[in-house]
Amino acid sequence: KLMNKLFADRVTDVPRSFIREILKDALLPGTISFAGGLPNRELFPLEGIQKATNKVFDTIGKDVLQYSNSEGYLPLREYIAAQYAKQGLSVPVESVLITSGSQQGLDLLGKTLINDNDGLIIEEPGYLGAIQAFSLYRPKFLPVPVTSAGMDLEKFKKSMNEGKPKLIYTVPNFQNPSGITYPNKNREAIANIVKDTKCLLIEDNPYGDLRFEGESQTSFKKLIPDNTILLGSFSKTVVPGFRIGWIVAPSELMEKLIIAKQASDLHTNQLSQCIIHQFLMDNDLNEHIKKITKSYGHQKNVMIECLEKYFPKEVTFTRPEGGMFLWATLPKGISALDLFQLSAKEKVLFVPGDPFYINNKGVNTLRLNYSCVDAETIEIGIKRLAQSIKLLIEKTID
Amino acid sequence: KLMNKLFADRVTDVPRSFIREILKDALLPGTISFAGGLPNRELFPLEGIQKATNKVFDTIGKDVLQYSNSEGYLPLREYIAAQYAKQGLSVPVESVLITSGSQQGLDLLGKTLINDNDGLIIEEPGYLGAIQAFSLYRPKFLPVPVTSAGMDLEKFKKSMNEGKPKLIYTVPNFQNPSGITYPNKNREAIANIVKDTKCLLIEDNPYGDLRFEGESQTSFKKLIPDNTILLGSFSKTVVPGFRIGWIVAPSELMEKLIIAKQASDLHTNQLSQCIIHQFLMDNDLNEHIKKITKSYGHQKNVMIECLEKYFPKEVTFTRPEGGMFLWATLPKGISALDLFQLSAKEKVLFVPGDPFYINNKGVNTLRLNYSCVDAETIEIGIKRLAQSIKLLIEKTID
Repeated sequence: KLMNKLFADRVTDVPRSFIREILKDALLPGTISFAGGLPNRELFPLEGIQKATNKVFDTIGKDVLQYSNSEGYLPLREYIAAQYAKQGLSVPVESVLITSGSQQGLDLLGKTLINDNDGLIIEEPGYLGAIQAFSLYRPKFLPVPVTSAGMDLEKFKKSMNEGKPKLIYTVPNFQNPSGITYPNKNREAIANIVKDTKCLLIEDNPYGDLRFEGESQTSFKKLIPDNTILLGSFSKTVVPGFRIGWIVAPSELMEKLIIAKQASDLHTNQLSQCIIHQFLMDNDLNEHIKKITKSYGHQKNVMIECLEKYFPKEVTFTRPEGGMFLWATLPKGISALDLFQLSAKEKVLFVPGDPFYINNKGVNTLRLNYSCVDAETIEIGIKRLAQSIKLLIEKTID
Repeated sequence: KLMNKLFADRVTDVPRSFIREILKDALLPGTISFAGGLPNRELFPLEGIQKATNKVFDTIGKDVLQYSNSEGYLPLREYIAAQYAKQGLSVPVESVLITSGSQQGLDLLGKTLINDNDGLIIEEPGYLGAIQAFSLYRPKFLPVPVTSAGMDLEKFKKSMNEGKPKLIYTVPNFQNPSGITYPNKNREAIANIVKDTKCLLIEDNPYGDLRFEGESQTSFKKLIPDNTILLGSFSKTVVPGFRIGWIVAPSELMEKLIIAKQASDLHTNQLSQCIIHQFLMDNDLNEHIKKITKSYGHQKNVMIECLEKYFPKEVTFTRPEGGMFLWATLPKGISALDLFQLSAKEKVLFVPGDPFYINNKGVNTLRLNYSCVDAETIEIGIKRLAQSIKLLIEKTID
């Protein structure tokens, strides 16, 4: 075939999206899906966005349609820097680069930092979008388990010593997929290990503002400012379809990131940057976030209640204080992929844990999304899923 | 420093944008710029875009704000496929991937196809955005000169035989920077050389619709469909700030491109895809393009007249039949960079040829943009520039 040997090595082994593949044939009518990774569309501020859009056309006019600069729309970068200042983080506006979603932030960091076989510590389970983006630059992944206590410190130290990583990738708040938040004690211990090294820690924080209970934990940017790269996004707090995110990085790295950004897509969509900025000027984002957290928090509570009520006691799960996901662990030896086969027929979907691991396959863990399903549907879905789990456990014991 | 040895090899040697650097300190008030690479903002269809935007909000509603699929907005892909069909090109909708501008098309092709040191034929002078995007994947560039007769066929054959290229990058219509269009005879000769190889030819065609005179030439996609990858863009025909372009690629490659697209930014800005589609449904694009070509064509004519009237006879230049640029060649030994230093003080800017070459430095060629400057200003600017050229020639001869 024409294409043989034509592909770059970096893409030869990368499979198509696992989630896309398994969900493709699973969408029977009437299916309840806990598989989504989407914010709840009902909460999108359509009216406010439309008003902001017309204001942008009326005030900025034709310039909003022209090519723009690679760093991003200055007033939006200033807004982001000011938000960090409110949190007590020192982020000069020059250190903020607007990206086409925070997925592009991952790609640009991979592009500017990763050589073949460079060590990269990643959470296990870890965000699959990060695994995918970094994979293309062929690092040596060093997975470190996360639990409700945060990163496993012994394994983290071991990976730092033996793997000589260049990068550490973390989602310390309401992690995707697990919903776990690293406690302050764990963050401080990690910071102490990292602070005298040349290692850069990426703090990816798309869900940080979506806290429904408990106390905010300290940003790595506060603990080890020189080693920390921040990734942020408006996808979970305003809208995801605009693909507006950002990177905060030290100036030497920023220079390389801007070159990589130019080479990747010249600049981020200008209209959407201006709309988001106008929306933020004219609306109280905190009020809007309160609506989101009230809704997601309620749905999380309902899901936890249902899990306690219907799931077999051998199944454990996380109890997120924010974000969109929780993480369930089946008894040892029970494959979440087998469960998926079974439950898809019963019209309940979730994401089996496999794609969130670097190597493990056939794992006994799964991700449940609660942001897109209302309370009533959650109860029906979890009840059905519990039935499938019980059936599978019985089968496996037989 | 913390960053030492931290960067990936692919970015260590890439300099910041040459154009950005040289223009930074050159913007004295009252400066006339032929350096731009922008479409003329006066011609942006602001009213039509604003109407289309409100229609999108009113008809699609919240879904336009949600995450979307990596391939792009299906109705827009269908529109693009239908446009190719009108030109007699067979482009199934599955072979169209919407990208964040056609700059991202270049990045995705580099990502999926280029290994270190893979041969890549590129025009000389060539589009600097392509040089920049591909450079990050570290190909072996094989520059082949282009003149008004198209690619230099002897050098092209030699590069095909000796360089074993995987890719050929071309802008065959109104090339950036030269304004050159390959004649059909040249295209056919190139196609004959490529057709029995495994080499892929990228036909990047951002300016193709902006023809003000002469006859359309045959697309490589018609001549060697299996070897041709198309890149397209709405940046020059509708608006650039939305960053909406596309790739047309064979299905095996498309599968890899979609993975690379997911890893790069998940999907292209959804609102802008829908706006462009709605705008195309409600407006006659051909009528709009006629306005653009009438304006650019007039400005091109004025510039050519002025060049004939004011420039020393030793300076030659191309006579584009479309697009936004023309290319001037100074007498041998006269550096366009030296001219830039001189003319910037006289408040006239252009882009010296250097960044459009792979190796040559201090070249005697330069790019002049006519899309953003009105007739009166063109005359003043070219007159001034001619003075600087005469001065430099005298100086150099002394």
